[in-house]
Amino acid sequence: MKQDYTIPHPQSVFWENDHLVLLDQRKLPRETVYLHLYTPEEVWDAIVTLAVRGAPAIGIAAVYGLYLGVRHVTGREEIFFSELERMVDYLSSARPTAVNLSWALNRVKTKVESFKGRPVSVLRQAVWEEAKAIHEEDVRVCRKIGEHLLPFLHDGMGILTHCNAGGLATGAYGTALAPLYLAREKGWNLKVYADETRPVLQGSRLTAYELMQAGIDVTLICDNMAGAVMKQEKIQAVIVGTDRVAANGDVANKIGTYSLAVLARAHQIPFYVAAPSSSIDLATETGDGIPIEERPAEEIVSGWGKPTAPEGVRVYNPAFDVTPAEYVTAIITEYGVIRPPYRENLRKCLRQTMTV
Amino acid sequence: MKQDYTIPHPQSVFWENDHLVLLDQRKLPRETVYLHLYTPEEVWDAIVTLAVRGAPAIGIAAVYGLYLGVRHVTGREEIFFSELERMVDYLSSARPTAVNLSWALNRVKTKVESFKGRPVSVLRQAVWEEAKAIHEEDVRVCRKIGEHLLPFLHDGMGILTHCNAGGLATGAYGTALAPLYLAREKGWNLKVYADETRPVLQGSRLTAYELMQAGIDVTLICDNMAGAVMKQEKIQAVIVGTDRVAANGDVANKIGTYSLAVLARAHQIPFYVAAPSSSIDLATETGDGIPIEERPAEEIVSGWGKPTAPEGVRVYNPAFDVTPAEYVTAIITEYGVIRPPYRENLRKCLRQTMTV
Repeated sequence: MKQDYTIPHPQSVFWENDHLVLLDQRKLPRETVYLHLYTPEEVWDAIVTLAVRGAPAIGIAAVYGLYLGVRHVTGREEIFFSELERMVDYLSSARPTAVNLSWALNRVKTKVESFKGRPVSVLRQAVWEEAKAIHEEDVRVCRKIGEHLLPFLHDGMGILTHCNAGGLATGAYGTALAPLYLAREKGWNLKVYADETRPVLQGSRLTAYELMQAGIDVTLICDNMAGAVMKQEKIQAVIVGTDRVAANGDVANKIGTYSLAVLARAHQIPFYVAAPSSSIDLATETGDGIPIEERPAEEIVSGWGKPTAPEGVRVYNPAFDVTPAEYVTAIITEYGVIRPPYRENLRKCLRQTMTV
Repeated sequence: MKQDYTIPHPQSVFWENDHLVLLDQRKLPRETVYLHLYTPEEVWDAIVTLAVRGAPAIGIAAVYGLYLGVRHVTGREEIFFSELERMVDYLSSARPTAVNLSWALNRVKTKVESFKGRPVSVLRQAVWEEAKAIHEEDVRVCRKIGEHLLPFLHDGMGILTHCNAGGLATGAYGTALAPLYLAREKGWNLKVYADETRPVLQGSRLTAYELMQAGIDVTLICDNMAGAVMKQEKIQAVIVGTDRVAANGDVANKIGTYSLAVLARAHQIPFYVAAPSSSIDLATETGDGIPIEERPAEEIVSGWGKPTAPEGVRVYNPAFDVTPAEYVTAIITEYGVIRPPYRENLRKCLRQTMTV
């Protein structure tokens, strides 16, 4: 992939000469193992078994998988398109609920269809070009978010983050972690605190891992220590990612984000949300309209194969919470910084998107 | 033990006919196993191996152990006292840093010394009486705290608690959990939420266990979900215990307590601290004077024998935090409810103690 910058941390998904490489996330945080994949079946398998995770990273892996599936197809156009169609369906089936997965695959398909009538070698090349474009676009979006967040930071600052909105989940950089990598490029020393993020420990397993790999100073804490470190004045900014931003600026993100936002407000610490424009959903009026998935009790009562709670205990395990817009200092997209009033300014931002 | 009430939940330490019984806390939460102890060596072993935990429970176990050590001593008074002395030293050595342990043992010793010159059978009886008195006093103190807290609660209410300030750590009832047991006696149905309390999971392993055993409706949540359940209006009061209350009302308690206090304030939920008068330390001016113990990284990075964080990651693991007095709605002792201004009213409370 052509780049005018070096990606300073482990990439979860990239193309190497003639094949796809994935960082095997099942082995993290203790082992850094790369998988080298040459067939769509191998890619399908990697998605199913969670070797790759994070919506953008899955989408990128899948479109490269699509190229692996059609790159040797020759002969008539009909054969090529029927094979393309079959591969799109096949790879989509690896994680049927991952919207980003089928979105990315269909984007490639639509693009290639616009080349109908051209030689099959051109069609194959079009698959490759679009896969690469999706990947590069994701990296560019993440880097842009980082660039727009960077002016809020300064050398020596203490930053708190939650869950993993990092390079491992995207083509590179991540969203909330992007400014930390750019700060590193500038030679700044930030002091990052990573919430472990119960119950599934994405902060501990993934965020701490990727920041350490990049040589960024990271300290792991339990979620319930966030208030204490803020009180000790160790934190000057909180940066989190998001799953969905409602039209009024309410932010859905990993459970625990709302508590952090309230704590940040009480300590007069700015609270930034890194949000690719694709996560802004104007069709959802407010946070009340965002359904909160509840996950299995098992994640809390026996996370590592050992029971840690009484048998049959009642458990409440929401995957997300909603942070009201009033707690959000700014929402940072690839197009720039969005400030309150969010209802107006989010709309403006998305209008800009459409003209880009 | 004479009682004018039934203890409705598993007791962690009690006397049965001729021996001491301990609930083996190493087996919790999945197994309810009682240890039957007949010798001081068995009691020493139980304390060392953490079969019994919680300062008051350890003290009670130790003084019953002292009685087990001297109950068969006959002959001259000197022999009795030298054996008593030896046993006090021996049992104190089981957990040298547990202040309550040596305090309780020495209280028995001092009491028995006041009987000098009386027959050895009387001295033996005095050991027994004082051990029983220490146990009964602890139960009475806890129950009194519960009685003083009860007027703040009502049937159907949602309560959030943190860590384990429960019957398992004391002679019975606990401190923060005492009002929940009394509410249960009245037939009230409270809806209790227990923070799992990372990193050591006392909420999950102990609080959820003892409340379930008592038939109290308890729901386990991760610490980072507290804000979300408050926002959903599921919580009408937060009740926690304390390790130490400073003269100005600042409260040291298990890490995470401060975050809860800030969240409670933001949601206009009262925040109560259950504090036996013995935990009020007028010699400590403010919370700044309370040293915060840092515990091993191991508790966070591989809690269940499986690594969950990158090797060598930097970890911050404070055992406690300090909640400033301004966040505390009331401090509830066995003598009654203490309201702000705490500097004045804590002093008044302790003066009352001295006249009791």
